[in-house]
Amino acid sequence: MRVAVVGAGAIGGFYGLMLARAGHELHFVVRGDYQTIREVGMQLVSPSEGDFLLAPANVYRDVAELPQCDLILVATKTTSNIDLAPQLAKVAAPGSAVVLLQNGFGVEDTFREQLAPSVNLLGGLCIVSVHRDSPGVIHHFGLGALNVGYHSGEAGQRSAVESMIETTFREAGIELSIMPDLITARWQKLVMNIPFSGLTVLLDSGTRALMVHPATRALVRQLMVEVEAAAALCGHPLPAGYIDEAWAKTDGQPDYQSSMQVDFNAGRPLELDSIYEAPLAAVAAAGGAMPKVEMLYQSLLFLNQRNLQQ
Amino acid sequence: MRVAVVGAGAIGGFYGLMLARAGHELHFVVRGDYQTIREVGMQLVSPSEGDFLLAPANVYRDVAELPQCDLILVATKTTSNIDLAPQLAKVAAPGSAVVLLQNGFGVEDTFREQLAPSVNLLGGLCIVSVHRDSPGVIHHFGLGALNVGYHSGEAGQRSAVESMIETTFREAGIELSIMPDLITARWQKLVMNIPFSGLTVLLDSGTRALMVHPATRALVRQLMVEVEAAAALCGHPLPAGYIDEAWAKTDGQPDYQSSMQVDFNAGRPLELDSIYEAPLAAVAAAGGAMPKVEMLYQSLLFLNQRNLQQ
Repeated sequence: MRVAVVGAGAIGGFYGLMLARAGHELHFVVRGDYQTIREVGMQLVSPSEGDFLLAPANVYRDVAELPQCDLILVATKTTSNIDLAPQLAKVAAPGSAVVLLQNGFGVEDTFREQLAPSVNLLGGLCIVSVHRDSPGVIHHFGLGALNVGYHSGEAGQRSAVESMIETTFREAGIELSIMPDLITARWQKLVMNIPFSGLTVLLDSGTRALMVHPATRALVRQLMVEVEAAAALCGHPLPAGYIDEAWAKTDGQPDYQSSMQVDFNAGRPLELDSIYEAPLAAVAAAGGAMPKVEMLYQSLLFLNQRNLQQ
Repeated sequence: MRVAVVGAGAIGGFYGLMLARAGHELHFVVRGDYQTIREVGMQLVSPSEGDFLLAPANVYRDVAELPQCDLILVATKTTSNIDLAPQLAKVAAPGSAVVLLQNGFGVEDTFREQLAPSVNLLGGLCIVSVHRDSPGVIHHFGLGALNVGYHSGEAGQRSAVESMIETTFREAGIELSIMPDLITARWQKLVMNIPFSGLTVLLDSGTRALMVHPATRALVRQLMVEVEAAAALCGHPLPAGYIDEAWAKTDGQPDYQSSMQVDFNAGRPLELDSIYEAPLAAVAAAGGAMPKVEMLYQSLLFLNQRNLQQ
């Protein structure tokens, strides 16, 4: 199968390399790492999956250079979505599947408006621990599952597209689950993303210290509860006990730097639209509010602007 | 009249020097600046009030060394109140007046429990722009008014005490107003203190930048509205239009570092109890909440602890 990966950082690189190793024809759109990947290729380093070098081939600087593909994985930061969507629309063939491997809420809507009705659009939630060590070198630490939910497309194509994706990934050794409700799944991911992405930046702290101090421990929990109530108000209630599960999982984890914190410290723009602005707009439209989430968002807007100006 | 000033920083120094110049017998309790004041004296530098040097006299390291005084002005940080109240109780004579020139809410209650019933307790809100330049040198930039409200004491003494204070300060050239309701006045001061003390620390910013960015501008206003609603719920509604006035005043001011920010940058403990904890407890006891104020407090508890450990 012909597969495109837009944005070959840690996430795009990992899934792309796994699919390439399984025999698929991969096409990568990369920005900063173009030269290295063009000359050396891309490399997977994984204690559990083994190492794999993909020789230089099919690397582009721009989405416009992509051939038509059956499957397009989008693994860029959401901050580039507004520019990316119309470009992608030009190369997404009728009947193809576009899967957004991105954080946050409402990201599919930005793309949907641009794509032809016959293009299938899906969202993916990655459960994987990966890091881009240096240009073209993806270090995989563990996990690797991918939860995918259908967003939209031409009527009647959904189950065929879901099977195609399920088969493709599973044959490549990736544990893939098809989610019945993408939006609920997005809310579930926000339960973790909203407190930890923002507070690690706002308080310049790893996750561990936030979970240890009683004041921020209470605050993390309150932010999660606001997200839970908002999901229910928006018609996508979380499964019973979901917050307790997320809580227990976090409590057991070692200290961790959120990717928003990594972006902030590197002076890159933060993904505030999809993680904060869109869920806040959704709950406001439903007549509710998330006051502490909103305060976090307001503070991050201020910090982000100052950070980018420095 | 014999007057004691406990804590001769900018605030205590200014009012103490003004009273000394008017001919009162002043007694100062100072910590860090003791040696200088003992040897050189205290100095007022003011474009509007003129300069004044008080020769070395009546300076102590400890409250316990004070003689009995008619009027005791307390101008220390509230962070030391728990230790200070029982010491002060020993030197406050029957019928004397203790005036707390401190920030925040509920500070009088800590002292009241310790003082004899015959001691009059009052709260003062200082409207003055002063800075302690170096040990014993108080630079006065402008303003100087003092609003004083009676908190508690023996029945029947109130109006006599209020007249005594009014006369004493006015004769010393200080514009003094007796407030009918101390608690309402405290809530009024919190309208400014709650957003600006905390946000300047949390976002490491002067007040100007907070009022300029649309996100933090909205947040400041929302914090003020939470305080206004809490005051009303607690039975001390602010005067109509008070927030609009405070807002206009802030909008017209030049950039400003809050005293909490100065304390934070100097590695000193923050006055979180009186500015955040006590008002939050009051509104919770009344069955309400200030979610964004609470989040600010939670964040500051975390930052304060880390700051003191560093």
